[in-house]
Amino acid sequence: MLLNSNYTGKVNYTNNYYIKSIRTKLNFLSAILFTELIMEKQEKDIIIDFEPISRRIIIPKNKSFHEILTKVGIKIRTLCGGLGTCGKCKVLVQEGREFLNTPTKSELEHLSGADISNGWRLACQIKVNNELIPKIVKVDPPQFRVFLPEELILEDFKILTSGEQKDIHLKPAVRKLYLEVKKPSLENPVPDLERIINSVTLKDKNFLNDENLNIDFKLLKNIPDILRDGDHKVSLTFLNGNYDELISCEPGNTVNENYGIAFDIGTTTIVGYLINLNNGKTYSVSSMLNPQTAYGEDVITRITYIKDNENGLKELNSTVINALNTIISKNCDKANIKPTQIYEATIVGNSVMHHIFLGLNPNYIGQSPYVPVIQRELNVKSSIIGLNISPGGNVHVLPVIAGFVGADTMGVIISSSIEKEKELTLAIDIGTNGEIIIGNKDYLITGSCAAGSALEGAHIKDGMRAASGAIDSLRIDPDTFEISYTTIKNKKPIGICGSGLIDLIAEMLRAKIITRSGNFNKNLHDMERIVKKDKSTEFIVVKKEETSLNRDIIISQGDIRQLQMAKAAFYSGMKIILNELKIEKTIKQIFLAGAFGNYIDKDNAKFIGMIPDISSDKIFQIGNAAGSGAQNCLLNLDLRKKTRELLKKVKYVEIATKKEFQREFAEAMYFPHMNLELFPSLKEYENIPKR
Amino acid sequence: MLLNSNYTGKVNYTNNYYIKSIRTKLNFLSAILFTELIMEKQEKDIIIDFEPISRRIIIPKNKSFHEILTKVGIKIRTLCGGLGTCGKCKVLVQEGREFLNTPTKSELEHLSGADISNGWRLACQIKVNNELIPKIVKVDPPQFRVFLPEELILEDFKILTSGEQKDIHLKPAVRKLYLEVKKPSLENPVPDLERIINSVTLKDKNFLNDENLNIDFKLLKNIPDILRDGDHKVSLTFLNGNYDELISCEPGNTVNENYGIAFDIGTTTIVGYLINLNNGKTYSVSSMLNPQTAYGEDVITRITYIKDNENGLKELNSTVINALNTIISKNCDKANIKPTQIYEATIVGNSVMHHIFLGLNPNYIGQSPYVPVIQRELNVKSSIIGLNISPGGNVHVLPVIAGFVGADTMGVIISSSIEKEKELTLAIDIGTNGEIIIGNKDYLITGSCAAGSALEGAHIKDGMRAASGAIDSLRIDPDTFEISYTTIKNKKPIGICGSGLIDLIAEMLRAKIITRSGNFNKNLHDMERIVKKDKSTEFIVVKKEETSLNRDIIISQGDIRQLQMAKAAFYSGMKIILNELKIEKTIKQIFLAGAFGNYIDKDNAKFIGMIPDISSDKIFQIGNAAGSGAQNCLLNLDLRKKTRELLKKVKYVEIATKKEFQREFAEAMYFPHMNLELFPSLKEYENIPKR
Repeated sequence: MLLNSNYTGKVNYTNNYYIKSIRTKLNFLSAILFTELIMEKQEKDIIIDFEPISRRIIIPKNKSFHEILTKVGIKIRTLCGGLGTCGKCKVLVQEGREFLNTPTKSELEHLSGADISNGWRLACQIKVNNELIPKIVKVDPPQFRVFLPEELILEDFKILTSGEQKDIHLKPAVRKLYLEVKKPSLENPVPDLERIINSVTLKDKNFLNDENLNIDFKLLKNIPDILRDGDHKVSLTFLNGNYDELISCEPGNTVNENYGIAFDIGTTTIVGYLINLNNGKTYSVSSMLNPQTAYGEDVITRITYIKDNENGLKELNSTVINALNTIISKNCDKANIKPTQIYEATIVGNSVMHHIFLGLNPNYIGQSPYVPVIQRELNVKSSIIGLNISPGGNVHVLPVIAGFVGADTMGVIISSSIEKEKELTLAIDIGTNGEIIIGNKDYLITGSCAAGSALEGAHIKDGMRAASGAIDSLRIDPDTFEISYTTIKNKKPIGICGSGLIDLIAEMLRAKIITRSGNFNKNLHDMERIVKKDKSTEFIVVKKEETSLNRDIIISQGDIRQLQMAKAAFYSGMKIILNELKIEKTIKQIFLAGAFGNYIDKDNAKFIGMIPDISSDKIFQIGNAAGSGAQNCLLNLDLRKKTRELLKKVKYVEIATKKEFQREFAEAMYFPHMNLELFPSLKEYENIPKR
Repeated sequence: MLLNSNYTGKVNYTNNYYIKSIRTKLNFLSAILFTELIMEKQEKDIIIDFEPISRRIIIPKNKSFHEILTKVGIKIRTLCGGLGTCGKCKVLVQEGREFLNTPTKSELEHLSGADISNGWRLACQIKVNNELIPKIVKVDPPQFRVFLPEELILEDFKILTSGEQKDIHLKPAVRKLYLEVKKPSLENPVPDLERIINSVTLKDKNFLNDENLNIDFKLLKNIPDILRDGDHKVSLTFLNGNYDELISCEPGNTVNENYGIAFDIGTTTIVGYLINLNNGKTYSVSSMLNPQTAYGEDVITRITYIKDNENGLKELNSTVINALNTIISKNCDKANIKPTQIYEATIVGNSVMHHIFLGLNPNYIGQSPYVPVIQRELNVKSSIIGLNISPGGNVHVLPVIAGFVGADTMGVIISSSIEKEKELTLAIDIGTNGEIIIGNKDYLITGSCAAGSALEGAHIKDGMRAASGAIDSLRIDPDTFEISYTTIKNKKPIGICGSGLIDLIAEMLRAKIITRSGNFNKNLHDMERIVKKDKSTEFIVVKKEETSLNRDIIISQGDIRQLQMAKAAFYSGMKIILNELKIEKTIKQIFLAGAFGNYIDKDNAKFIGMIPDISSDKIFQIGNAAGSGAQNCLLNLDLRKKTRELLKKVKYVEIATKKEFQREFAEAMYFPHMNLELFPSLKEYENIPKR
């Protein structure tokens, strides 16, 4: 998204030096590389982007949105089936309100005045007013952008929740202890708390550091009654670490009910892992799309929203806290446990998600020199944060590394143990934001690359997230140009997700449909699947008859540019970080982290030049490594200490400000790279035309 | 007050085993010693107790309360002078509502319905309805008890604020530091907090323990703006001790503005000392009557109120917090400083005041075996407590020792250093509750004595607090029975305060007006000043003509019993604690703490047998030692550590449950004691009749 910000008119980046500098560079690059305009004219149709599912649809005018959604296979929750009587299909129109009919009687009934003025409508009631639509239709920004609330979406999205769990020694911060406390007497009138502590010390002399023990203040108020309700038989919960504290006291023996929850707060998705802290087992995993998407699909638009709206930070903060509470409650329902028996939560997320979660203003992350408010880890009471776990519970937030390399990257480092590797290792975490880590036992350098969310299907005409009906793998017969593909859940295709897009680009290269510079091969311009539309060219991936849509699934020249830029961002970012390492410069091993990294074809990712040319058996897909980092820190206190040590070791490189960035990026726009010598194993490129 | 609970019908002690056991004992004692009934019949007058000033007045019927107050010299704040137009003279009628006129038109105008149903009236509007008053009038409880809110009372009450300040080495928990923080750059994009901490370490390597440093979470949210508002020049405030924390960051250099406040929360009075933590100097002292008196004048009635009212604890807690905030604001006005530049508050108070201040339920202190919720010291954020100081400020609450020996006693121990004395020392803190400490370098034993508030003038017909017009010292010519006296502020007398009462008893003994058993000397029953009223006898202390009242100031047989019981409680309590010390049994030195202890005539206190017979030059009046303890702990962190060590050393004796209590108490009811050998220096007693 960063990379195509030059096309969006919505977000005001005026004070955003970082973005400005990238924009200047990209304008320059596009002048060199881009041969087509990304403007399209489609007088009969209009374009709607649906968020947070990143689904673009092109539709004939004069249909209600509800009909449209149903037709294209996005199921939403309504009771009345689109009659306007249930009021359930509330959607937020973010772009294009001016082209819509005025709110109907049914909407005036079901929506408040504030709702309507904020852009909320009922999907079944809104229609496009043809007269108002301008003749020239822009693709980006689209005329319409519509946000669908989480609860409206019936479809399950594929959110990567699993990560590679190394064998973690169980040493959680939370410890429970069952006690029969001595009752007070006139001979021994010891105060309640002191009797409790004395009983702990009697049971286990080394259990706690009495001298520095804190007591949760709200708990203290309830202790007298809990003690007597439980006939002086109670289960205590202690936090250890640098923050020894008695955080809970429950009547009876509840030591088996000892849970923690690890959260990975992504820009687009949030995952929560409910773990039993007595045995380290994961009892339930729940996830949802990050509802902050309603405020902007990437971190920069969210920072801008916060800057432009007095209560913006508060709004975004409540939104994410509510989402986490929804996940907590889902997990507790699944595992049949009480939220108050979750005593600790660990949190990873990129720096902006980290700041918004904590209610810290991310403003200065968004402008040069891009500094966060805080780097170090934080421990905050759940009641202060507003998380619905035990009221005395601890929220441990992993440290961030820099403005655009957050606690999620620290999670990847912790769970991958990259800092212990002998060989120089590249780890890339591919999500809505892309982070690069290069390191081994001697070095640890990180950087952020403005890869954008093209690889997640955003801003690609028929791109979509990994949901049912998405093409997730694909082959092209180089002789017949016949295309075979698979879709998620074997549904009729409705779009292409990230792994499908990588396959598509790689196969189009192998079949010489596109050249190394990303242009359609002029020699093949007369083939059936290549269609010229005004000034753009499109390649038909799936014909209308095979889809759930009543049109072809295509990839346009503009789409290819988006993917080129994304892959170039990773490769050039890696090159620039490597330049910082003065001694050794060869990547020997690659870790692919994140949802996307997990599902792609490693060989094709290498083939398009997204990652360096090393043997595929040295490329490891490590899953949601950021989330694993949060889980590991939940399970083992020593790893939190390790994050502190890692902070001292890790270096951060501001990639986009390096003088060689423009050249590196431009060279990496080629497939696999302008310099073929960097990819010696890819012999097929000898036959693929450069331009 | 505890001791005359057998006369009060109001408080329901049914579940209060402690009080019950004392009551049984006192009923037994009164059967032995009391020869008169404390019932009086005064058909023409009614009795009103005014709280919190403990002023009893006996008035003719059919006067408005406002007239009555003015007449007896209690000035209250009104604008209209009693016409009923300003609505300022709001008072709370606690007892006797049923004997009053119904609310007038003026009251219905100025008071809310809730006010009226809670018993609030306008002093200028209420009159007694003669028809409703029963013929037999009880003295205790009086027909009327009226609470005067703090703001209504114009008169300055004498609240002891000064204590003996030993030379305290300045080592406060709060430290401020002025810093010019390095600005961030693209080359060095260090997060805000880390730049601050790095600058501290650069300035003074040993200033803080970075590894364990906490950051006030609300402060963290404001740091980015404060840093930039102050052009990266800021003053930081750190808390040290076991709770290293950055609690404040202010733009510019404000290191000279570094304040703390020490509070002594008494049952009846609250004092706050504002201290500059850079130089240890007291900048302002403010005090007020504890507004909790509206809910009951002693700790037991307040516990009962909390037990009987669902929101009782919350109400009493807010009341004391509001009072402390009033004192903070008074002090800040006087010293011309900002409340946000007070970074720490230290608190002492008896166990019940301690619990209510913290919002902890004191219920179990009030019933056998009388255990508090917590003994140890507490550190709580000011924002959690609700104190209007720096939002990140620390509230340090000194530890309590036992149910009836609170943090105030710990304050006395800390400020008097009794635990360092070579000679066995008795310290008594005389307030609404009485505490006894006996100790030296080898022993430290404490106990609480149910001394009641008679010594503060409560429940004595013409007793009053030390306010202007109170007789504070007195002599009787043994030959002529002429009485000479002094009053506070040299006003015409309106009552007798504690020090005056002690003098009066001692002088009545010396003049043989009363006997060693506390009865009026039958041989003098025909003297002019002795008046028989129904079944009671009174001694006229000041004749009507000399007073501001239109009646005599007297002391009744019942009043003498109250004072006898109070002094006996101290002496017998001390004897019982001494019995616990198996080796050494002779008090060599006495510390008199508390308001009362400071103003009394030491020789007369000894003469009536309240304290043991030792040389007066070994009796020291140490002032508000509890308050000094709070100040000392504010000024020096090591003393907080010392309170922890003292907790391990100090023993607590439950005086009233000891089997010898009844005998010791009965013997100590005599002046100076049943056993004259205990007071060998008081030769005058050879001539004073025993009965």
